[in-house]
Amino acid sequence: MAITPGRKRVIISNILPTVDCGKFPAKIVIDQPFTISADIFTDGIDKISARVLIRHSGQKLWKELELQLRDNDRWYATFTPDKLGKYSYQVIAWINHYTTWQDGIRKKYAAGQDILVDLKAGLAIGEDALTRAAGKDKNTIQKWLQQLEAVTESETGMKLTEDETMNGLFCKYRNKIATTIHPQTFELIVDPPKAVFSAWYELFPRSAAADPSKHGTFNDVCNLLPTIAKMGFDVLYLPPIHPIGLTNRKGKNNSLIAAETDPGSPWAIGAAAGGHKDIHPQLGNLKDFKKLVTAAKKQGIDIALDIAFQCSPDHPYVKQHPEWFKWRADGSIQFAENPPKKYEDILPFNFESEAFESLWDELKSIIQYWADNGVNIFRVDNPHTKAIPFWEWAIDKLKAEYPQLIFLAEAFTRPRIMEHLAKVGFTQSYTYFAWRNTRRELEEYITELTKTDLQYYFRPNFWPNTPDILTEELVHGGVNAHIARVILAGTLSSSYGIYGPVYDLNVNEPRPGKEEYNDNEKYEIKHWDWNSYTKTREIISRLNRIRKENPALHTTNNIEFATTDNDQIICYIKADDSRQNIIIVVVNLDPYNTQTGNIKLPLYKVGISYDKPFAVHDLLSGDKYEWNEWNFVSLNPHDIPAHVLKVIQ
Amino acid sequence: MAITPGRKRVIISNILPTVDCGKFPAKIVIDQPFTISADIFTDGIDKISARVLIRHSGQKLWKELELQLRDNDRWYATFTPDKLGKYSYQVIAWINHYTTWQDGIRKKYAAGQDILVDLKAGLAIGEDALTRAAGKDKNTIQKWLQQLEAVTESETGMKLTEDETMNGLFCKYRNKIATTIHPQTFELIVDPPKAVFSAWYELFPRSAAADPSKHGTFNDVCNLLPTIAKMGFDVLYLPPIHPIGLTNRKGKNNSLIAAETDPGSPWAIGAAAGGHKDIHPQLGNLKDFKKLVTAAKKQGIDIALDIAFQCSPDHPYVKQHPEWFKWRADGSIQFAENPPKKYEDILPFNFESEAFESLWDELKSIIQYWADNGVNIFRVDNPHTKAIPFWEWAIDKLKAEYPQLIFLAEAFTRPRIMEHLAKVGFTQSYTYFAWRNTRRELEEYITELTKTDLQYYFRPNFWPNTPDILTEELVHGGVNAHIARVILAGTLSSSYGIYGPVYDLNVNEPRPGKEEYNDNEKYEIKHWDWNSYTKTREIISRLNRIRKENPALHTTNNIEFATTDNDQIICYIKADDSRQNIIIVVVNLDPYNTQTGNIKLPLYKVGISYDKPFAVHDLLSGDKYEWNEWNFVSLNPHDIPAHVLKVIQ
Repeated sequence: MAITPGRKRVIISNILPTVDCGKFPAKIVIDQPFTISADIFTDGIDKISARVLIRHSGQKLWKELELQLRDNDRWYATFTPDKLGKYSYQVIAWINHYTTWQDGIRKKYAAGQDILVDLKAGLAIGEDALTRAAGKDKNTIQKWLQQLEAVTESETGMKLTEDETMNGLFCKYRNKIATTIHPQTFELIVDPPKAVFSAWYELFPRSAAADPSKHGTFNDVCNLLPTIAKMGFDVLYLPPIHPIGLTNRKGKNNSLIAAETDPGSPWAIGAAAGGHKDIHPQLGNLKDFKKLVTAAKKQGIDIALDIAFQCSPDHPYVKQHPEWFKWRADGSIQFAENPPKKYEDILPFNFESEAFESLWDELKSIIQYWADNGVNIFRVDNPHTKAIPFWEWAIDKLKAEYPQLIFLAEAFTRPRIMEHLAKVGFTQSYTYFAWRNTRRELEEYITELTKTDLQYYFRPNFWPNTPDILTEELVHGGVNAHIARVILAGTLSSSYGIYGPVYDLNVNEPRPGKEEYNDNEKYEIKHWDWNSYTKTREIISRLNRIRKENPALHTTNNIEFATTDNDQIICYIKADDSRQNIIIVVVNLDPYNTQTGNIKLPLYKVGISYDKPFAVHDLLSGDKYEWNEWNFVSLNPHDIPAHVLKVIQ
Repeated sequence: MAITPGRKRVIISNILPTVDCGKFPAKIVIDQPFTISADIFTDGIDKISARVLIRHSGQKLWKELELQLRDNDRWYATFTPDKLGKYSYQVIAWINHYTTWQDGIRKKYAAGQDILVDLKAGLAIGEDALTRAAGKDKNTIQKWLQQLEAVTESETGMKLTEDETMNGLFCKYRNKIATTIHPQTFELIVDPPKAVFSAWYELFPRSAAADPSKHGTFNDVCNLLPTIAKMGFDVLYLPPIHPIGLTNRKGKNNSLIAAETDPGSPWAIGAAAGGHKDIHPQLGNLKDFKKLVTAAKKQGIDIALDIAFQCSPDHPYVKQHPEWFKWRADGSIQFAENPPKKYEDILPFNFESEAFESLWDELKSIIQYWADNGVNIFRVDNPHTKAIPFWEWAIDKLKAEYPQLIFLAEAFTRPRIMEHLAKVGFTQSYTYFAWRNTRRELEEYITELTKTDLQYYFRPNFWPNTPDILTEELVHGGVNAHIARVILAGTLSSSYGIYGPVYDLNVNEPRPGKEEYNDNEKYEIKHWDWNSYTKTREIISRLNRIRKENPALHTTNNIEFATTDNDQIICYIKADDSRQNIIIVVVNLDPYNTQTGNIKLPLYKVGISYDKPFAVHDLLSGDKYEWNEWNFVSLNPHDIPAHVLKVIQ
């Protein structure tokens, strides 16, 4: 049987993971197995063999992984990346005439049909492979051919069809002309573990001083590290640490005029003391900062810096590079605005400047500067108000050199833009979580995040509060709501964060008429009680310990919602790939009243048998229960408003 | 403000309709408006303008359609193609600095802010456009600039911002450097109306004789045309009309040995009298056939031929082109087989032949031959057992020359293969409809067909029976089931078909143990009562008339299911784009008993108000009712098992 040139019968389609038809890379994590799959089929009944070719950007040779057919013509391979950075992969497939031959003969033999003629068809397969075989393999094939030639009756022939080594050889020497190579090469970004599994704590360093009369420093923050580590956080995020402008400085509660002692907003970056590569003199110096980074690392904590690409009017860039800003028709500089609102302490960059290339280079160099000083994680302020192609270019270039970098997009904006920022490179993204409070809101939103294409490129980071966001639920629900919401954040998403210590101290006074904290720390220095014991801090510590100890909580996409008959009760199951670690979370969404209800667990989705009860251990309270498909729950928000149940197997 | 070269701030994403990332064309219908849409967005708050460029493959110039923003950053344009064949389209977008300027000024003015400086920013916009403007447009822009220059107070300036003609000019002379052009050009196939809206009737011409002792002829079929037209069908599909082989001819009920008088299966094509371009001598000659085609056309009926690319052992090709077939190791020719099953009256072609190019050319020429003889519709037998790349090439080439051709894929196989055949060019496809009988099965299946990507390229054709398929539901449910199933077929899908006259005569005796008709017409000549009046024929006539008169039934994707409290009752609404024509269908799926139930209509989905009742007219029975959001129904399958209600507006 001659193999035809030119026409490839096998079709390869719908390769996953891909993002936007392969335009952007999918995101995976180092040392975590992930699955590549594709629809692969052909005409008629012939059998197919298929492979994934995969390699790291630094490698020359492609590694071949075997794809295996599961059902509905979908084929699967698993791969565990062992390097950070970029991988590429391709899918190929071909008609395997050998396994087709084997399969046909076995069926005929089992049906009592004569197979001698069909056996001899194997000769053509071997002869064809011989034309491409090399070295010892030639001899092996020739030997097999001789045996096949000599066959005179079915029994002996059948034995030859059972030779599995021949399949390996025929695959190795497959005819490239008849092999379908899907034309696209897909990319994957391999990130470090904290890209997907991280617990963030945000605090203002200037509020970290033990002495209430002083401006906090990096050294003060160092002293807080044990407390933060004990609570279980592994990322410490600091608002901008640079000099703050004086011109048009905002006063307390965002007032237009600042008092002399008002420190201003850390986001109004730039003064005589310097800009984005400099440190606010009252926080310390570069040596202090690096000491903080090192001390944090020893506690398992990464320092995350805030990248806010905007300037106060006093920023050195204004005089050095006027071409990087927008200028009004009257010669004055253009402040940030969203008509009719004006933000006169901030100047946006002009991404349409003819000098955009030098602007891009400088902005990228800012991030690089801090990366060179030990910072691996960056929370990016309002990336959606800067040209998106800039981020695509900058993140790609930076991660090519520093593949360990993590970028969190703080883009509270419309969905398509949030998604696109994730596609072009942002490692994690803030989400609408703060405004998803009811059971239906939560179930719909998390289903969208985990069961659509977003699962391949959008990594949510759930924040119940930020310096800009204090929701009504937290205002009215008090401590009980703070506890329920942080449990939701930390179990629904493998990455979550809180702005502390307002959160863990249950501070919740809003500015009248606004969804913001009153006497906001953005505009004034605070002095917190860092060491007091609160119920929220206790629950957070338990939550973070539970998260660390249970792999089911280390990814976000592995969630299945249960049915409950009370909308105040939400229940979901998280299981790791092996299904050895299964966590069932039940939360009472009512911060005021005990709620009871019946829960029906989708046991089949996590492989738990229906026919007998199973033991569960509530990791939050220590209690133990016997659970089934149907379960009654009662949760008192004044006690612990949730169960976090580990299935005992 | 200078426009930067090199970087385009606007992002264009998720353009629809597309199939497999633009790899295959989407399917639309001539003279039917269809929608192009895309996600289009940018950073910050600037305003965007966007266009679709579209042209027919025979045109040089692109036509520009304006895309309009609806919500969630999705933009829409509507286009009505007026030519059959292939269209291409592209999407472009850019920051519209003029509308941005207008918008900002209006907001500031409304807030009582001073706008003089902002007004002057318009000068840079005009000057930039001037660098590209030509002819009279230059003068218009210059005049506008002079007026703007002269502005000294807000009121006059505001009037200049209201000039909408300037927007048209600034769009016309947009800066190409700052315009985002989505890199892909997408294709669309424009088909004739019957591609999406057709009612098929299948009969065996050899059974068409009025005289029971005779073999039917094309002339006999001519005499049946008025009956078929009266029933309301517009496609008459004939099994293969070619000479039938003698060697290994199948006898009655698929027996291995044929009696002398057995006519054989029409799908065993080829004998001394000729092959695929010849006519079975007992059916008539080419002149008779062309006469049938013309007569049918006069009755609004298209003749559809069966394309079965396989040969009996007696086919002239076997001797003329042995290289087109597979040969066994003992020198004998390879029959069709699916081990251990053998089909010894059929030889498959060898698509892996080194002579595949001549094979492809010949097969394509067969279709072309019949197209040249007036046939526009082809039902293709088992396309999934022939190399799929062949169909992709052949259909593309044939439709380039004969854009009116319609190809129906008879591929009862696995889903991915059925979908792929549709992608590569098959106009319509048989489906799993025959095996979707319960309410849940129907709702899930039709939702998959109409609410996923399949809606852009897969056109279902619903057949409750075929010569190969007689389901248990039709066997046990008798007349009542025949009626319910044809109503379902013809209202769920805008294209449907029945194999008659077994269907309309309610013939339903199965071969023991098989899902097939006993004494199957595939293996013997029948003599039917073409003129008897049956309830099924009556209902079919009403159904086809209703379909013709109600545009809501002319497409398939516009379906919304209602909620019912009885699983034996299925209810769905079909509305045309304008929502002037709304049809509510209710079917009792129980062929034995009256069923009653309550239906909740999703009125909001078709724009019917909730607050008052509306009149409906049952087009099947003539009855009139007053309906609401909630309705009680009672359907007796021994009467008419369905309502087909037209909403009176």
